Amino acid sequence: MSYDVNAKESIKPSTFLNPVPVVMATCGSMDDSNIITLAWAGTVNSEPPMLSISIRKERFSHDIIAKDGIFGVNLVSRPLIKACDYCGVKSGRDIDKFKEMKLTKFKGEKTGVPLIMESPASLECKVRQIIELGTHDLFIADIVNVYVSKELFDEKGAIDMRKADLVAYNHGEYYSLGDFLGFYGYSVANKDALARRMRKK
Amino acid sequence: MSYDVNAKESIKPSTFLNPVPVVMATCGSMDDSNIITLAWAGTVNSEPPMLSISIRKERFSHDIIAKDGIFGVNLVSRPLIKACDYCGVKSGRDIDKFKEMKLTKFKGEKTGVPLIMESPASLECKVRQIIELGTHDLFIADIVNVYVSKELFDEKGAIDMRKADLVAYNHGEYYSLGDFLGFYGYSVANKDALARRMRKK
Repeated sequence: MSYDVNAKESIKPSTFLNPVPVVMATCGSMDDSNIITLAWAGTVNSEPPMLSISIRKERFSHDIIAKDGIFGVNLVSRPLIKACDYCGVKSGRDIDKFKEMKLTKFKGEKTGVPLIMESPASLECKVRQIIELGTHDLFIADIVNVYVSKELFDEKGAIDMRKADLVAYNHGEYYSLGDFLGFYGYSVANKDALARRMRKK
Repeated sequence: MSYDVNAKESIKPSTFLNPVPVVMATCGSMDDSNIITLAWAGTVNSEPPMLSISIRKERFSHDIIAKDGIFGVNLVSRPLIKACDYCGVKSGRDIDKFKEMKLTKFKGEKTGVPLIMESPASLECKVRQIIELGTHDLFIADIVNVYVSKELFDEKGAIDMRKADLVAYNHGEYYSLGDFLGFYGYSVANKDALARRMRKK
């Protein structure tokens, strides 16, 4: 089929992948902690579970994480959005973000890294590799522990992520998640599976 | 502050970062194309613009992208969600996904890779590095061209990503984006900026 020149506009190459996660990464120790908000983050491997975060070299958290080799990834729910934004624009060189944003820290059992109690889920991560890319360094890390708020579990003990009310980052703006559209595999699922697993919008 | 043992449950280490993007990656040539849906994707560098995708070694698209060194990343809007899910569970070894899903392909000018016309935005990518991680290989790539559907531009020529109606992936389920919660920097913005940039929910 031919390319319709009227349908598309070619723009300057840019970081146009959307939506992306937005997370509050934590680092340092329980006594001397920092939080940095990051949208350049993603899952990179299923088994062993791994994720990556990218951080500008000049950011305060960059050297802390590079030195310690550990960090936390705290998911962002709607009530956290103001703290999340604040921790993305302010520097830990100048302020104590936990204190300023009245956030509660708890210690990850596997790494000792501080985590955010108010976050619906927190991942403890150990850096495996750091790759210099340009403005940012890519930190590839193993996920060694996951904490989930008990209020996310349903009566059967399954995790209901809707209860987390998570936020996504879309072209410079924060959005809540909206309508449920389907589960992985729904397009080829049989009627029983559809009846069981298709939630109400 | 002390850790409240009643508030959190530690679960098995897993890929718990949420929400994440969901994209339809394209590969091959205009004559022999494939589409693979991926959620393990993320922006990794701002300048030069770069992203990563992770693909299981055994997937049909893995070797095509490793050999050709190019791929497309097509963002997923609500009308594409069924095709998106289908392209995540079916293999291109067995079917022509463009044909099955009645999708229109167009050729990326910079790489020649096929892209999806029905996607609101498509990124042409050139592989820079492949890193073996475990179940997945991580493809780190330069974004060399971005196509945006003309209908996303507003009357001033700015891109309004709301018009794209993008989809996020959240713990095995697809969701639309919901409420606008703020723009990057809104927590420290002055009144003028807030009045100008805070959209209505």
